[in-house]
Amino acid sequence: MPSAEFFQVMPVAAALRLLDAHWQPAAATETLATAAALGRALAGDVHAPEPVPAFRKSTVDGYALRAADSFGASPALPAFLALRGELPMGAAPALDISAGEALLIHTGGMLPASADAVAMLEHTQALHASELELLRPLAPGENVIQAGEDVAAGQLILAAGSRLRPQDIGALLAVGITNIAVSARPRIGILSCGDELLPPAAALSPGKIRDINSYTLSALAEALGGQAQRLGIARDERAEYQQRARAGLHACDILLLSAGSSVSARDHTSAVISALGQPGILQHGLATKPGKPTIIAVCDGKPVIGLPGNPVSALMVTRHLLPHLIARFEGARLAQPQPRRAQLTQRVASATGREDWVAVRLHERAGGGLMAQPLFGKSNLIFTLVGADGLLRVPLNTGGFDAGAIVEIQPF
Amino acid sequence: MPSAEFFQVMPVAAALRLLDAHWQPAAATETLATAAALGRALAGDVHAPEPVPAFRKSTVDGYALRAADSFGASPALPAFLALRGELPMGAAPALDISAGEALLIHTGGMLPASADAVAMLEHTQALHASELELLRPLAPGENVIQAGEDVAAGQLILAAGSRLRPQDIGALLAVGITNIAVSARPRIGILSCGDELLPPAAALSPGKIRDINSYTLSALAEALGGQAQRLGIARDERAEYQQRARAGLHACDILLLSAGSSVSARDHTSAVISALGQPGILQHGLATKPGKPTIIAVCDGKPVIGLPGNPVSALMVTRHLLPHLIARFEGARLAQPQPRRAQLTQRVASATGREDWVAVRLHERAGGGLMAQPLFGKSNLIFTLVGADGLLRVPLNTGGFDAGAIVEIQPF
Repeated sequence: MPSAEFFQVMPVAAALRLLDAHWQPAAATETLATAAALGRALAGDVHAPEPVPAFRKSTVDGYALRAADSFGASPALPAFLALRGELPMGAAPALDISAGEALLIHTGGMLPASADAVAMLEHTQALHASELELLRPLAPGENVIQAGEDVAAGQLILAAGSRLRPQDIGALLAVGITNIAVSARPRIGILSCGDELLPPAAALSPGKIRDINSYTLSALAEALGGQAQRLGIARDERAEYQQRARAGLHACDILLLSAGSSVSARDHTSAVISALGQPGILQHGLATKPGKPTIIAVCDGKPVIGLPGNPVSALMVTRHLLPHLIARFEGARLAQPQPRRAQLTQRVASATGREDWVAVRLHERAGGGLMAQPLFGKSNLIFTLVGADGLLRVPLNTGGFDAGAIVEIQPF
Repeated sequence: MPSAEFFQVMPVAAALRLLDAHWQPAAATETLATAAALGRALAGDVHAPEPVPAFRKSTVDGYALRAADSFGASPALPAFLALRGELPMGAAPALDISAGEALLIHTGGMLPASADAVAMLEHTQALHASELELLRPLAPGENVIQAGEDVAAGQLILAAGSRLRPQDIGALLAVGITNIAVSARPRIGILSCGDELLPPAAALSPGKIRDINSYTLSALAEALGGQAQRLGIARDERAEYQQRARAGLHACDILLLSAGSSVSARDHTSAVISALGQPGILQHGLATKPGKPTIIAVCDGKPVIGLPGNPVSALMVTRHLLPHLIARFEGARLAQPQPRRAQLTQRVASATGREDWVAVRLHERAGGGLMAQPLFGKSNLIFTLVGADGLLRVPLNTGGFDAGAIVEIQPF
C-alpha cells in the first residue's frame, strides 16, 4: 500500500548551486563558419587580427584636403582650393594633394596620404571644374575615421562565452574571421515513462493519454539552444526503465526523466536515478509550485532531472532549470529574463515556503500599459498554459500580490 | 559633381503603414510535423478534434469512491469503506464499486463508472487489506478531472497567426494533431552593392572593406524567423546592379538592398528600385537616426528596402522594419519588444524631428537593478554595437533623457 511522501524542499537557486558543486561539464568545442554561428557561445576570447578600418576613410561626401589650408575660412572670407580630381571607391588613391589642393571623395573612400580632413559638400561652393571655395575651417581628422578607430589590431573583441548576435557575426567577418570555435551544444535526452502513455499519433484507448512531455520538453530544449533527443516511452517496469535511462544518459549530456505523478511512479524514478551512477540524487523536492516533487541528481558526471509527470509541472520546472544547465555546459553567460511590467487585475495569494508561478493573460490597457489577468484553476491543465501569455513569479515567503499591484510577467 | 540631397523624412511607423497600404502578401502555407513547428505561425484556427482528458481521472494518489459514502465523516466518526482492490494505470477499470466500497487509484488513473470522487491517502487510514477509514467528507468531483475539463471537443485551441510555443505543440499533440498547416516563412533576399566590397574571406587591398551587411542582415533575418538568401555583391555599375536586384526580387518575398552611403550610391539604388516594378519608391527618408536615408518601396507586389550602407545603420533600420514585414507575411501577430528597465548614467540629448537610437551597455547596480551607460561616439562603427547590450530609443520630438532617468532598454 503506498504511503504519503515527505521531503525537505529547497529553493530552485539553491538546488542549482548544489548541482553545480557536483557537476563539472567537460568543455567540448567545434569550429563553424562564422556566418552559421548565430546564437552559439564562443569557445575562447577573440582578438582582432587586423584593424578596422584598415585605412583612413571619409565619413561624408566632400573634399579631401589639408586642414591647415582651411584655417580662418568663413563665408565672408572663404579659402580657395584647387580641385585636382576625384578619388575612386574601393581602390588606393592614385592621386595625392599638395598645399592648397583638394580631391573629391565619397563616403567610405580612402584618404590620400597628405590629406587629413574632409570638407562636406554643404560647406563648399564649386567655382568651376578646377576650383572651389571652402566656407568654414576644419580640424585635423574632421569627417575622417582613422585606421583602427573602430577596432585596433590585437584588441579583445568578444570574450569566451559570448553568444553571437548578428552584429558579432558582422564584427568577426569584418576582421576576416570566417571560421570560429564555439562550444558544443549539449545533447538533452528526454525519456518518458508510464504505462498510460501512447505516442501522439496512436489511437487512444480507455485510460491512455498521449505522451506530450517528450515534445514540449524537446521544443523547449531546442528553443534554449540545446540539441533535444527524444528517447521514447519506457513502460513502467523497472528493468526496461533502467535500461533506457542508462542508454539515454550514455548518449546525452543532460538527461530529463518524465514519469507519472503518482508516488509509485516517483519512487520508481528515484530508484532508476540512484542506480545510474555516483553521486546520484542530490535533492528531492523544490520549493516551487508547480514542480515540487522534482529530483535533482548528478550521475556519472552528468545532470539528471526527475520531473513530475504532469505536463504543466514538467514544462515549468524545465524552464527553471534548463537555461542554467545549458549555459553552464557551454560556458556561456545565462541570459537574463526579460519580464514585461503589468498591473494585476486581481489578488494573487501565496503560501509561505515556496515560490508560486501563476499563468497570466496580458491585455492592453485603454490608457496604455498592460493588465495581467491570473489564470487560476487546476494547475495541471496544459491548455491553461496555451491560453497564457506569461508567468507571474510570487517569490518565496511573500504574501502574494494585491489587485492593482505592478508586477513583472515573464513571457512564456 | 554631386549635390547634397534633401528629402522629407517620415516616422518609421508611418512608413510601415504606407508600405502595408501597397502590399498584400499572398498567403502561402505548408504542412509540417507538429513536433517540428516550433516558432511557426498557424495558417488557420485550430479546434480540438477530441476532449482532453478523454476520461475522468484522479489528480491524486488515493481511493476512488462515491462521495455520498463520505458525507459526515470525521476523525472522530470516520466512514468505513470496503477496499475492493487496485485500479491499473493506462487501462480501463476492470472493477467498479458499489455503495460503501473503494478502489485504490493512482494519480492520472481512470475512475470506475460508479465513483465520483477520490479520497487522498492522507485523509484515510487503512485498517487491514480490505477495509479503510475515511476521516473527512468529500464533495462530488473532488480530486477528479472531468472528461473535457482541460479542453472540450470542438473548442478553439489556437487562433490563426499564433506562433507555436512548446506548450502549444504539446496541446496540439494532446488532441492527436500530429501534422499542422503553418504559414510559409518569407524568403528574404539580401544584395550588397559597392566596388569597395570584398567577400569576408578575401584578402584586403587598399580602399577595400569586407562586406559584412550581407551577413549581419541575414543573421538578423534568420533570428526573426525568415529564410535569408544572400545574393552576393554587385559591382557599382547600373546594368549589373539592376540585373541582380531583379533576379533577387524574383527569387524572394522581401528584398533588402545594401549599397554604399555616398549620395551617388544612394542615387544608384533609387534608380535600380524605381526600375524594379510598380508602384516603386513610396518614401525616401525615415525620421530615425541612424538610418535616415532609407528607401521604402513596393515593386511587383513585394517590399523592397534600400538600406544605408554603413553596417550600424543597415542593421538598426532592418531591426525596425523586418519584424513587421515578416509578421505581416506570415499573418502573425507582431511580437512585442521586451525592454529591460535601467537607470541612465548620463544625459542623452536628442534633436527634434527624429527618433534616436543610442547603444548602451548595461551594468548591475550595487543595490539591485541595472544602470545603462550610453556608448557615444561615431555611430557607424560596428564594434560599438558589439560592445552594447541594448538600445535606448529617444522618441520623436522629446528633449532626450536626463542622467538618472529610468529608461527602457531593448536588448539587441
